[in-house]
Amino acid sequence: GEPSGPSVKTPIPGPKSKEMISELNNIQFSNTVIYFTDYNKSIGNYIVDVDGNVLLDVYTQISSLPLGYNHPDLLKVLQDPDNQRTFINRPSLGLFPGQGWPQKLTSSLMAVAPKGHTQVTTMACGSCSNENAFKAAFMWYRNKQRGGAPITEEENNSCMMNVGPGSTPFTIMSFKGGFHGRTIGVLSTTHSKAIHKLDIPALDWPIASFPRYKYPLEDFVEENKAEDRKCLAEVEEQFEKYNKAGKFVAGVVIEPIQAEGGDNHASPEFFQELQRITKKNGAALIIDEVQTGGGASGKYWCHEHFHLPEPADFVTFSKKMLTGGYYSLPEFRPQQGYRIFNTWMGEPSKVLLLEKVVEVIKRDNLLSIVQASGKKLMDGLMDMSKRYPQHLKNVRGIGTFCAFDSSSAEKRDEIVAKLKEKGVQSGGCGDLSLRIRPALVFQPYHADIFLHQLEKVLKKI
Amino acid sequence: GEPSGPSVKTPIPGPKSKEMISELNNIQFSNTVIYFTDYNKSIGNYIVDVDGNVLLDVYTQISSLPLGYNHPDLLKVLQDPDNQRTFINRPSLGLFPGQGWPQKLTSSLMAVAPKGHTQVTTMACGSCSNENAFKAAFMWYRNKQRGGAPITEEENNSCMMNVGPGSTPFTIMSFKGGFHGRTIGVLSTTHSKAIHKLDIPALDWPIASFPRYKYPLEDFVEENKAEDRKCLAEVEEQFEKYNKAGKFVAGVVIEPIQAEGGDNHASPEFFQELQRITKKNGAALIIDEVQTGGGASGKYWCHEHFHLPEPADFVTFSKKMLTGGYYSLPEFRPQQGYRIFNTWMGEPSKVLLLEKVVEVIKRDNLLSIVQASGKKLMDGLMDMSKRYPQHLKNVRGIGTFCAFDSSSAEKRDEIVAKLKEKGVQSGGCGDLSLRIRPALVFQPYHADIFLHQLEKVLKKI
Ligand code: FES
Repeated sequence: GEPSGPSVKTPIPGPKSKEMISELNNIQFSNTVIYFTDYNKSIGNYIVDVDGNVLLDVYTQISSLPLGYNHPDLLKVLQDPDNQRTFINRPSLGLFPGQGWPQKLTSSLMAVAPKGHTQVTTMACGSCSNENAFKAAFMWYRNKQRGGAPITEEENNSCMMNVGPGSTPFTIMSFKGGFHGRTIGVLSTTHSKAIHKLDIPALDWPIASFPRYKYPLEDFVEENKAEDRKCLAEVEEQFEKYNKAGKFVAGVVIEPIQAEGGDNHASPEFFQELQRITKKNGAALIIDEVQTGGGASGKYWCHEHFHLPEPADFVTFSKKMLTGGYYSLPEFRPQQGYRIFNTWMGEPSKVLLLEKVVEVIKRDNLLSIVQASGKKLMDGLMDMSKRYPQHLKNVRGIGTFCAFDSSSAEKRDEIVAKLKEKGVQSGGCGDLSLRIRPALVFQPYHADIFLHQLEKVLKKI
Repeated sequence: GEPSGPSVKTPIPGPKSKEMISELNNIQFSNTVIYFTDYNKSIGNYIVDVDGNVLLDVYTQISSLPLGYNHPDLLKVLQDPDNQRTFINRPSLGLFPGQGWPQKLTSSLMAVAPKGHTQVTTMACGSCSNENAFKAAFMWYRNKQRGGAPITEEENNSCMMNVGPGSTPFTIMSFKGGFHGRTIGVLSTTHSKAIHKLDIPALDWPIASFPRYKYPLEDFVEENKAEDRKCLAEVEEQFEKYNKAGKFVAGVVIEPIQAEGGDNHASPEFFQELQRITKKNGAALIIDEVQTGGGASGKYWCHEHFHLPEPADFVTFSKKMLTGGYYSLPEFRPQQGYRIFNTWMGEPSKVLLLEKVVEVIKRDNLLSIVQASGKKLMDGLMDMSKRYPQHLKNVRGIGTFCAFDSSSAEKRDEIVAKLKEKGVQSGGCGDLSLRIRPALVFQPYHADIFLHQLEKVLKKI
């Protein structure tokens, strides 16, 4: 079982981690490594490093562990000999799926599909999930333009040389502060930090502003409504500008909460109106739930909190879902084979683990626990924001997907570092924010431990 | 153990496969599925479908199975409880690598590194492996341009909006017929089939011709040399054109054998000269060994057959290597953190399996077996090309990485289909070619079975 709390014995990284970092540095750039981890000893909400330090993990591998470390039910999946075969016989799913594959999809991804979604395509990471959603949107948009006309010889020949009409001038609209991955296509829709994009060629695609609210929300209702209107007006402008120039906007990609970009939230009304504008312009709405999805918001999908009038056209996922991929409406099915395709198309072993995760979430009422732990976190942070307003402000969150701002990047980094000394692994995001991303097994008493250590840190800064 | 040979009981896809295809079709496009597979019964070189048909597999999940199905040594890896934990605790490798990770890299990827390579970066599939090699090449090229000057505020700000100087106008040169993946960046260097590219926006990047030889090689020595010269002249022209226009060519990406594009081979002299021209132009040579790497050529890396004067700048891999990634020379290490980065940066469980694969390849002398089986295949195909010249020509191969052309796409498809009826799973590539991509455990007697069935098919066409 879990330890009763964190325990820190050495500076972090400790001597063993330091030695391993320098070994790793011989074969690859290793300056980003925080410490080496003992994954045999890490358990539940606790990550244990190779020097024996035990940390409460509210960062969970950049928000990618649904059930924490070494969950007994997941270990059991690995102990079943038939399951073991799934891990060594990786198929090309588009050609030779295994017996029972439709049922596996049904009992995992389809069991938690956003309302109105009947179609799912598996991929392997957040980047290829978004890349392929973009591709499906481009094909759909061009098909509408064709209006039933057949694909021409000229289109087929020209696309082979990267020119029109076969290669389209289509675009995807994205938002300042957004993050949708790191491969070159999706990187053109990522606007998190300069260092993520510097020196890499980028596509001339439209970019609009994402709301930046003033907190506490109840004190700035009118200002924040005005901010919504300003951003939505930019969306309309970008549609007009790019469509007029023939660089037709085939899709709009957005996160329910801009995570890498600093945990920027927008109102349900903003998202509802965005859906209306997107639809009006004949484009597809692509909701990127790579970081927000999988339960951390207290619902399976964070955008369910927005009560959109219609299902999103695409909902992309990865991280806590273990497999990448996207849900999409039936009209986005490719018309021909090998268009949305690659060697593996995801991986059955990830879906096998997800099936168990979905079962455990239901059995153990983990979404209720997320809601309870999230409330505890938010109440505690709100309270501290009153007592330490110079260090902790703009508290925001849905479920356990919480964050606050510090007064500067340096202060934020200091809080993250000092929390680590006190046995709490957290993470930064955006310019000033500290993000909290625990696993779904994070209980209210874990929230207490986190808040307690945070207060100790704030007291001494 | 393996069956003594193929056995086919039903049409393929059989009734059970058909039912499953229609189930799958409810939740996703499933027209590309060939049949549903029983991965518990598939063994070694034999794939077994859900209708009980047993096929000799010379296609191996698009060339991605190093040791065939259910290899006993890989099953053992899964049975070790400590290893099982590796499959359920997927880390963010750039932040929290696990204990022993440098050693795992050393005993797997570094143990088979191309000569002169000391650096490796792990990724998850062929597309992100190439995307990130491109990104590293862009950063390196821009760094050279900067000549030590610091990154400017203007660069940082502009790249956030996808414009220069922070977003560069740099390009990657590719070859007609090449395939480097399906995400939007690498898709601009892919020129395999129109349906892979149609409707997707593409970057204006230089494209040169890849040699198309006349066979048998010994009868067309001068013609093929002239073909090399023509293609290399195009490479020089493209460098001049794009560099002059300020769209500096930071890298040239090429496969040792163009696999998806039809198994197009080029001479060692072509590759040697390409390396010289690339270097002269200050660009990086990126050798894409995603399909050719991992032993099928009878060496670990197919480009080792070319005796390049210097190591390639990048060698990218995936498929049979189980993990994606790239080797690169030390000068391509990023200068700052989070530039070549993503949530997972590959996956330790894949490297764990690769470690065992590398051990088995050595222990069982599998590269010698590939050479022997390859010779058997090539001799048999050469012989048949004389006896059935109307159906089988342009035989080419290195190791078991073999192919031949048929007289038309229709005839090729017919041969693939009839082989399947006779219990052999092969695959097409390019316009006219049938590709042979067995696992490394494919023995000379398997080659005999393949050749025997192929001859039966050719006799009846
Ligand atoms: S791009 Fe997603 S796994 Fe490679």
